[in-house]
Amino acid sequence: MKLVTFREAGAGAAGDSPLWRVGAITPDGQRLIDLREAAQASGSNGPFESIPALLAAGERGLAAARALLEQAQRTTVAPVPGVLALDRVRLGPPVGRTGKVLALAANYPSHRAEGGGSSPSPTNSVPEVFSKPGTSVIGPEDAIRLPGPPITAVDYEGELGVVIGRTCSRVTEAAALEYVAGYLNVNDVSGRALDPGFERSPEFLSRARFFDWLIGKWCDTFCPVGPWLVTADEVTDPMTLTVVTRVNGEERQRASTGEMIHSIARAISWCSHLMILEPGDLIATGTPAGVGSATGRYLRPGDVVEVEVTGLGVLRNAVE
Amino acid sequence: MKLVTFREAGAGAAGDSPLWRVGAITPDGQRLIDLREAAQASGSNGPFESIPALLAAGERGLAAARALLEQAQRTTVAPVPGVLALDRVRLGPPVGRTGKVLALAANYPSHRAEGGGSSPSPTNSVPEVFSKPGTSVIGPEDAIRLPGPPITAVDYEGELGVVIGRTCSRVTEAAALEYVAGYLNVNDVSGRALDPGFERSPEFLSRARFFDWLIGKWCDTFCPVGPWLVTADEVTDPMTLTVVTRVNGEERQRASTGEMIHSIARAISWCSHLMILEPGDLIATGTPAGVGSATGRYLRPGDVVEVEVTGLGVLRNAVE
Repeated sequence: MKLVTFREAGAGAAGDSPLWRVGAITPDGQRLIDLREAAQASGSNGPFESIPALLAAGERGLAAARALLEQAQRTTVAPVPGVLALDRVRLGPPVGRTGKVLALAANYPSHRAEGGGSSPSPTNSVPEVFSKPGTSVIGPEDAIRLPGPPITAVDYEGELGVVIGRTCSRVTEAAALEYVAGYLNVNDVSGRALDPGFERSPEFLSRARFFDWLIGKWCDTFCPVGPWLVTADEVTDPMTLTVVTRVNGEERQRASTGEMIHSIARAISWCSHLMILEPGDLIATGTPAGVGSATGRYLRPGDVVEVEVTGLGVLRNAVE
Repeated sequence: MKLVTFREAGAGAAGDSPLWRVGAITPDGQRLIDLREAAQASGSNGPFESIPALLAAGERGLAAARALLEQAQRTTVAPVPGVLALDRVRLGPPVGRTGKVLALAANYPSHRAEGGGSSPSPTNSVPEVFSKPGTSVIGPEDAIRLPGPPITAVDYEGELGVVIGRTCSRVTEAAALEYVAGYLNVNDVSGRALDPGFERSPEFLSRARFFDWLIGKWCDTFCPVGPWLVTADEVTDPMTLTVVTRVNGEERQRASTGEMIHSIARAISWCSHLMILEPGDLIATGTPAGVGSATGRYLRPGDVVEVEVTGLGVLRNAVE
């Protein structure tokens, strides 16, 4: 299934989360079914307040969603309750506004190499994890906004995102994939530098550099995700997907997820040894070579960035 | 007002958030008023689903809460609707489970000095900000749990916490305090090292060190807050409070918030230039000298840690 967060076009202002609803894309890719409305029409309720709530209900929630989707397809009388044309809705971020957004730094040898670094072996290192705030998360129809001082040199990072489906703590690598609800495209937008016009002293710039690397990933709109969450049953092997990033149609990144230093299973296991993971939590698995900082080509207003991982659709965001 | 999150003792398992309710402590300090129940009893509703929801309603929400508190005090017929004895409830974290938890690193010269570092002037540096996940947050009656490998050398950090009351972005230092809802005690519990028994290779330890410093702050139960949120009107000057931390009754930290390198106003302004701040977001303002790592005395099972900032009550958590 392809699960989405959506609202009908024109309903309320962006960010007005109570209007967001949960849907599933129909197999023809042209429509979606409003899961709550469909459930109510068939005389039941469901855990369809949000995708994390749906996931927290476990297999029961996913089975209910699948049944509603199949029922809608069998119905030949129009209008089918809860079915909407995709071009009549606006898609929001499937997950990430609530819960954790974790991300791996430097998890592809090619990205380390373009930054001048070498790569450790996975057995002699651990995933390097950082976090992004929920307020950085946007959906597939929202714009990346260049924030202005103190953050500058804004860059894209196309990544495979993994969404947790079941609460887990201290899971082994062998068991880790059992806790995955599904996958989605992530753009880990990153401000690479502080604007020297904001605070001018050399001491300031020197001291701030370390934290800059982290805080440049926190800005509003710096975590586009989507367009949908593809459930794990539709992804045969998440370690053999292709990650592609394009800027204004020009391909900038292309790699296999098999190139990761730390596998998805290892990333989940490691994170779950640090803290509990909950349904809806997101782990972005790192970016391969081809980011703008390697060539000094940063994002500019009017650019359009696309991230496309095999089978996960295209995440396309304009830059403002 | 002293705002609390609570549930009646024995109601549901820990962490079962739907049972948490919002209350205000009565002036005698012995009871609390259940704000939603009191509102309903007086024929109205209120934004009392959570403290962030109350704060998001702005002055209207706080005024409604104050009116209910005053009404309960005037009522002489028992039982007053919604009033409960404090010893019959369990207090949870007032804020932090949802929204952002930001914290300042090394914001007191005395703490930098005990770690062997020097201090920059506030005009030549910026606040060094990191984040903690919502799952690290616990209330005043919960235990700090030592997580085991890979995190070890677990330490306390007593701090003043600032809670945002109104959404803000790019605010000036001069205006920053207008966005504060109130203050509470925070214990920024920190794992200082990786357990070499978890992954043994020297290369692993060397590579992991940088991230360790951050991830050691993310563990479950590593962010006790409370016991209540004291609204800003009750804190005359947040830059002249005394922060005290005790372990098993022995005083380990004592400092004035006036010793901070970056003031509360500057911390809010800086964070708001990086990302939007929302009602209920928490900024912990850094810890002074006296942490356990300075003397090698880390937390052990059975310890009791108290953080007490002037006027904010005592945050007391056992270690398991």
